[in-house]
Amino acid sequence: MKNHSPLLLVTNDDGITAPGIKALIEVMSEIGTVIVVAPDKPQSAMGHAITINNTLYLNKISKEEDLITQYSCSGTPVDCVKMAVNEILKQKPDLCVSGVNHGSNSSINVIYSGTMSAAVEAGIEGIPAIGFSLLDYDWNADFEPIKKYIKKITLEVLENGLPEGVVLNVNFPKRKENEIKGIKICRQAKALWVEKFDKRETPQGRDYYWLSGTFVNQDKGEDTDEWALENDYISVVPVQFDLTAHHAMQQLNTLKWND
Amino acid sequence: MKNHSPLLLVTNDDGITAPGIKALIEVMSEIGTVIVVAPDKPQSAMGHAITINNTLYLNKISKEEDLITQYSCSGTPVDCVKMAVNEILKQKPDLCVSGVNHGSNSSINVIYSGTMSAAVEAGIEGIPAIGFSLLDYDWNADFEPIKKYIKKITLEVLENGLPEGVVLNVNFPKRKENEIKGIKICRQAKALWVEKFDKRETPQGRDYYWLSGTFVNQDKGEDTDEWALENDYISVVPVQFDLTAHHAMQQLNTLKWND
Repeated sequence: MKNHSPLLLVTNDDGITAPGIKALIEVMSEIGTVIVVAPDKPQSAMGHAITINNTLYLNKISKEEDLITQYSCSGTPVDCVKMAVNEILKQKPDLCVSGVNHGSNSSINVIYSGTMSAAVEAGIEGIPAIGFSLLDYDWNADFEPIKKYIKKITLEVLENGLPEGVVLNVNFPKRKENEIKGIKICRQAKALWVEKFDKRETPQGRDYYWLSGTFVNQDKGEDTDEWALENDYISVVPVQFDLTAHHAMQQLNTLKWND
Repeated sequence: MKNHSPLLLVTNDDGITAPGIKALIEVMSEIGTVIVVAPDKPQSAMGHAITINNTLYLNKISKEEDLITQYSCSGTPVDCVKMAVNEILKQKPDLCVSGVNHGSNSSINVIYSGTMSAAVEAGIEGIPAIGFSLLDYDWNADFEPIKKYIKKITLEVLENGLPEGVVLNVNFPKRKENEIKGIKICRQAKALWVEKFDKRETPQGRDYYWLSGTFVNQDKGEDTDEWALENDYISVVPVQFDLTAHHAMQQLNTLKWND
């Protein structure tokens, strides 16, 4: 690890009042200097959305004497990272951590997740980044069992850095501390949500819908994040933001695009 | 190509009234049966956001006698694809096309793009998909020069399919038809937006911000989408939604996660 106290940017997508981010702030303040910039309201499933057609507000919610500086932001998780880096921080942070999300961001959920999009945005800006999620959607989820693992993973990343163009997607099973078997580097399982729209009627008789769905894991591999989590391991997936399917380029080049 | 008239799902992120989607519908109706499900308002830069904490509305805006069935949806581009597949279409479409976007979705823009997220969502659901974008942000952009290329690319994909887990990100340079040099299969250029927040004051004296930024291409490669577009080619990037950085797994496995 570098000799100075590391500068740690903390964000999330459940909003700055969520117990998950409080747990994360607690662990981070044992490691370095913490700055929090998080959404002022829940922003789950916002993906990599940014605010371009609307104004953004930033509120400093910590007092001058507080040990930890905290801002809430009216935008998305990705907006929070952009505002932190460009408007608040005077130097690039050593690490950006996002979470702890109330609920899974394993497998295909990484695509929809505001938590992970914040980490990916930091990665794009050249900041090592980790998204943490606990497989418990309850607002009163117990984050105690995972705190020592969050600290271990964070210290490991501060010590060794991350490969270029890669951020980590860390998911924790909902288990007691002594039931967790350890940390596994995994690939993203092939999975999807099969939607079932719940159709209802407004008091005025107009149809409307609620999105709901069932998670379907199509992947039987034992090297996936889903397998790890089902078997009481913490899953760590290296996530990239170069979306090019390099393996497909040769096949596509055999087609007659320019005839 | 299959013998039946292909079923083509059309969506976008600029909203159902945008000239770009009208151009796309025009080309698609020369190829097969067209169903349009597109946002009822602009949804640019929404990334892979979905609507889970709010209601969704769907409006059939075409008349019974119209040749093309069109729905507007109150949600994001990804919501549109989910609603089309699960609520509107009785069979899986042969192809989903998204766009034509008013503005670039090349390189890192793919991450923020609602246009591309719609295509990616279709891909996740096992539907071949293409996102089309023109490097012209003008509402009155001229889509005529690119129509024959949209048709060519669409027919090629209907004829040959796409590699599993891959959708196409197609960007067109703002050029006359005879100035376009052809179609190139490319990788996503390494690039980012460097933000500059424009700080203003409300009439009541409260600070607010507008997000704005400068696009920075850090990639000198001649095999990238940015290079192709600057040199008057149409760029086609195969995009994947398995975000695992497989190349980084070995390196990460050398760290001491479980000591």
